[in-house]
Amino acid sequence: MSASSSPAASTAVLLAAGLGTRMKSAMPKAMQPLAGRPMLAHLIASAAEVFDRIVVVVGPGMEDVERLAAPHATVVQHDRLGTAHAALQAEALFGEGDVAVLYADNPLITPETLRRLVETRRNGGADLALLAMRPKDPARYGRVVVGDDGLVERIVEWSDASADERAIDLCNAGVLCAAAGPFRAWLHAVRDDNAKREFYLTDVVSIARADGGAVRVVEAPEAELRGVNSRVELAEAEAAVQSRLRRLAMEGGVTLLAPETVFFSFDTVIEPDVTVQPNVVFGPGVTVRGGAEIRAFSHLEGCEVGAGSLVGPYARLRPGTTLGRGAHVGNFVELKATTLGDGAKANHLTYLGDSSVGARTNVGAGTITCNYDGVFKHRTTIGANVFVGSDSILVAPVSIGDDAMIAAGSVITQDVEGGAMAIARSAQTTKPGWATRFRNKLAAKKGQG
Amino acid sequence: MSASSSPAASTAVLLAAGLGTRMKSAMPKAMQPLAGRPMLAHLIASAAEVFDRIVVVVGPGMEDVERLAAPHATVVQHDRLGTAHAALQAEALFGEGDVAVLYADNPLITPETLRRLVETRRNGGADLALLAMRPKDPARYGRVVVGDDGLVERIVEWSDASADERAIDLCNAGVLCAAAGPFRAWLHAVRDDNAKREFYLTDVVSIARADGGAVRVVEAPEAELRGVNSRVELAEAEAAVQSRLRRLAMEGGVTLLAPETVFFSFDTVIEPDVTVQPNVVFGPGVTVRGGAEIRAFSHLEGCEVGAGSLVGPYARLRPGTTLGRGAHVGNFVELKATTLGDGAKANHLTYLGDSSVGARTNVGAGTITCNYDGVFKHRTTIGANVFVGSDSILVAPVSIGDDAMIAAGSVITQDVEGGAMAIARSAQTTKPGWATRFRNKLAAKKGQG
Amino acid sequence: MSASSSPAASTAVLLAAGLGTRMKSAMPKAMQPLAGRPMLAHLIASAAEVFDRIVVVVGPGMEDVERLAAPHATVVQHDRLGTAHAALQAEALFGEGDVAVLYADNPLITPETLRRLVETRRNGGADLALLAMRPKDPARYGRVVVGDDGLVERIVEWSDASADERAIDLCNAGVLCAAAGPFRAWLHAVRDDNAKREFYLTDVVSIARADGGAVRVVEAPEAELRGVNSRVELAEAEAAVQSRLRRLAMEGGVTLLAPETVFFSFDTVIEPDVTVQPNVVFGPGVTVRGGAEIRAFSHLEGCEVGAGSLVGPYARLRPGTTLGRGAHVGNFVELKATTLGDGAKANHLTYLGDSSVGARTNVGAGTITCNYDGVFKHRTTIGANVFVGSDSILVAPVSIGDDAMIAAGSVITQDVEGGAMAIARSAQTTKPGWATRFRNKLAAKKGQG
Repeated sequence: MSASSSPAASTAVLLAAGLGTRMKSAMPKAMQPLAGRPMLAHLIASAAEVFDRIVVVVGPGMEDVERLAAPHATVVQHDRLGTAHAALQAEALFGEGDVAVLYADNPLITPETLRRLVETRRNGGADLALLAMRPKDPARYGRVVVGDDGLVERIVEWSDASADERAIDLCNAGVLCAAAGPFRAWLHAVRDDNAKREFYLTDVVSIARADGGAVRVVEAPEAELRGVNSRVELAEAEAAVQSRLRRLAMEGGVTLLAPETVFFSFDTVIEPDVTVQPNVVFGPGVTVRGGAEIRAFSHLEGCEVGAGSLVGPYARLRPGTTLGRGAHVGNFVELKATTLGDGAKANHLTYLGDSSVGARTNVGAGTITCNYDGVFKHRTTIGANVFVGSDSILVAPVSIGDDAMIAAGSVITQDVEGGAMAIARSAQTTKPGWATRFRNKLAAKKGQG
Repeated sequence: MSASSSPAASTAVLLAAGLGTRMKSAMPKAMQPLAGRPMLAHLIASAAEVFDRIVVVVGPGMEDVERLAAPHATVVQHDRLGTAHAALQAEALFGEGDVAVLYADNPLITPETLRRLVETRRNGGADLALLAMRPKDPARYGRVVVGDDGLVERIVEWSDASADERAIDLCNAGVLCAAAGPFRAWLHAVRDDNAKREFYLTDVVSIARADGGAVRVVEAPEAELRGVNSRVELAEAEAAVQSRLRRLAMEGGVTLLAPETVFFSFDTVIEPDVTVQPNVVFGPGVTVRGGAEIRAFSHLEGCEVGAGSLVGPYARLRPGTTLGRGAHVGNFVELKATTLGDGAKANHLTYLGDSSVGARTNVGAGTITCNYDGVFKHRTTIGANVFVGSDSILVAPVSIGDDAMIAAGSVITQDVEGGAMAIARSAQTTKPGWATRFRNKLAAKKGQG
Repeated sequence: MSASSSPAASTAVLLAAGLGTRMKSAMPKAMQPLAGRPMLAHLIASAAEVFDRIVVVVGPGMEDVERLAAPHATVVQHDRLGTAHAALQAEALFGEGDVAVLYADNPLITPETLRRLVETRRNGGADLALLAMRPKDPARYGRVVVGDDGLVERIVEWSDASADERAIDLCNAGVLCAAAGPFRAWLHAVRDDNAKREFYLTDVVSIARADGGAVRVVEAPEAELRGVNSRVELAEAEAAVQSRLRRLAMEGGVTLLAPETVFFSFDTVIEPDVTVQPNVVFGPGVTVRGGAEIRAFSHLEGCEVGAGSLVGPYARLRPGTTLGRGAHVGNFVELKATTLGDGAKANHLTYLGDSSVGARTNVGAGTITCNYDGVFKHRTTIGANVFVGSDSILVAPVSIGDDAMIAAGSVITQDVEGGAMAIARSAQTTKPGWATRFRNKLAAKKGQG
């Protein structure tokens, strides 16, 4: 038997049946979030760049994992009998080409590493290729024993290892790749004659060797292969991803005044010459165009910020929001499913939901759109060059024409035509001396109390 | 003389007379805050787990320290004549059992370490037991010289130490424990024949040795014993405490997306499967039930968050606030002494103070309770399933019945019965062309200006 | 030739013609911000403490750099022919005394280091003095070869260095200082006979040596001399500056609960016994008086906070704001060009712009000043001891007298005299059963939809 090139379709089997036991979570481990999407989504994205087909092995009742995996195939591992058993659940979907087994709790593995794995299997003289790392603290990882010929001799579990073997710093990462045919046979040969009565995928290595197979190792950085088994490790993985995303942003021409306080999502797009002040959170789906400034304490999700816009401090842009060029969104302002035209401004204490605001329109402090009547949501349409006075209430559905003005403190329930002024407020009455009298009364009451 | 077991009541003497000189603070050092309570409160909490009696030695005029120490006894050290002198002020309260001397500026010492200290004194063959550490940078700490028999021979101050002695990395932490009887005698034997004319507690070691006493050392991590003498060291201690609290939360099943940006208090309780986004501050007295999500930039104090609730971003929950199951508190919302029923929502730009809100009630954007008339505070009561329109003002005391509705922009000054609709606003007037004319007028004025 | 004291005026030539190419920025590198001001401003501030005259060499079209440099002289380097060429552009302004060449992308150099450089030139037996550092990672820096006599023999570029020379850890920082006369001659002797056809300032060292000049080295920490060439390095420089500013604040008696989350500007002034909670941003021009507390998530620029004031959480103080003693500014409150008197309060969801508020006045939740009519800004004046009811709108220009009261929810368009009560709102109407009917109607509509 010898390694051969494999033009047939390759398959990645992603083991995602793990419960969140060590996480103390009711959520399956694969669903734990990392940079704004589940761990498994990161792994699928990486695997999809390298493999032709992806099969996800889930536990029973994990509908959310199945939904996430779609349109990729999922199979259910009904009994938890070990990693080899899990991989075998996907046997019917192995196809003819190479098969690799990956883990949902190793979400940081890169396409580059997967490519090297497959390449070594196909063209590197390996019947079985496996990933290994040299961790800072090798601890109780299984050690990979490599012979003088560069072939893997065996993997020794920590508990069985001699002192010499424990001194080896090359550790097994569990990920491996083989041609479907022999891999099937080897998987079926795995036995559960061990303390935990589980079928271990790692046993495939010795089985392949016994079968005359050449086993080769592909090294990758610990940062990619470290498992995420606890919330502490999840936080460490998040920190690693954030660190990478921050560096990429800065290298792309973004100024991060305090990179360690800016949180990105996996898909954040920020153009050059954008400045991001400290303490900004980017949820999924955000694009920021060149020259914009995102000020401190801002929170953005699912939105696009136009070139040269000013956002924040304390601005919250929610999904469906689009800012034109040079728009301003100031402090304590929330925008949801709202479009702000070029140069439009909403600078203070405002909530605009399900709205469109025209170019150069000024939305005064304390403006609120009433987009919800308790059952339905309605839209507010504001034209260009409108002046919306402070503390105005716009009861949707309502439409304000271009160049109109709304007097401060008005509750607007009817459409306002272009160029018109709308007002809905009471006249002021001032009663001399009444404040003094009222205070005296309160003071007297307090004296009695 | 030999060590003996001591069934009599044990006493911890806590030295807390230090001024904030190196802190450049008018506040006594013991009152400097750490994870939401004074340093001294941390030390009292640890000591109270191990010792039967606590005596706090304060400086003259430190009423706030005395109040904090209550109901534990306090004695005043009127003259600052050194640590042995300070300990002696508590002599009348030593009792019959063991006496240990601790320091308010060593607030991170754990009950476990104190237990080991006492245990070594009682059952470890020690007439005097003292704490020592091996600091990363031993610098100018006094060195502990231990003989071949495991007994402490002496403590050498850095300035008096030979090169060989300076090479010792076991350093004196100042904390010691002895039976009350001999400890009294040793304390009285301390002299102030030194440069600073102070009575040093450390001298008790050589006095005990000369008296034939066996002195033993108990090692503890530097992190517990490092002194807090400056604001920089205070910040370092805070960081150490926060780091421990974050790790405990994650190990307990809480997801912290960016643990380094979440700040806990000493008593924060968070149940499993709660997610905390970046940049959240928990003041004292907060409990968060399982499945809740605390979003970025939230600030919570003295409140309880119900299971499955959503809080933030930018939510501020102040003392006396309780959220039911599945309640929502959104951005730029402040709740003070307010109860929100199951499934109730206050999602935007709202202030609710001294209020109760029934289940499933929706509080619109910009709602404000006027709970203060300048002298008295009044309550607002809102029933279940109420719809409070946006920008409503509720002038307390006022009560809204179940299923009622408040029209947007209303100022509500009278009670509203169940199922009723209340409105208090002006009709809208729209004046065609007026906005254009007004603008032209302003433009003309500007031209003149 | 020998070093001599130089009573004549000294000159610092600051090279600031660099484009932001590696920054991927349209902004000249010298303008990139650091702790609230451009990098070049830091360098000018340091240089101005040591040198009598400053000349800034800018690139063509860099008007913003010229404006920043004013009133210091600027000269334009029209062609980018290297650092020696850049320095020569300033030749006419060299004066009679010492001339040093500094770099805008070395903004962290301290006055102390510059003083040592000049002192070594003048009184340390050096015709030419140059700065060097021992970087953690010497990488590809040029090495400084120093002879047994302590004089610099030469600077070897990495590419030309032998293995022995590469083992030298003393690296050239590029900054040098010489008397104007010889320096002129040496600069003119520099040739561009190298791969890039540039005139390198470093060549002055060998030229000076060949001319019989004594060249001496002045060592400084890497932290001061490390160049800022990319956004990543800019963020690292910002972190270094912030770290220094935080330490200085704490040493000065300020409590920073989480120093790593507090961002200062170069000119922030905070008096002792101020407490700053986590996540606070200080923009330029802020002074905070003793005993004040700045709570989490606050953002301050160009303002003065009076002694004992409480600010935040979520308070934004914008330029031109002054708080008196014991003033309170609470959550989601924005103040711009506003004065708050002693003990005055604005605690919730408020925008005050272009206003003055008297002592002890209480500004209710949701208060908004309408200071902008679309063209002009107007002022709001509120007296002492006024009670501004919640959700009041003050349409400027308007004035409220001492001791007056504004009823909650009023739109105030006319002046209110002292002691008077002003009210501008509609009476409440309550319609029994209407809410239930309205809901039924909506539900029916939903059923149809």
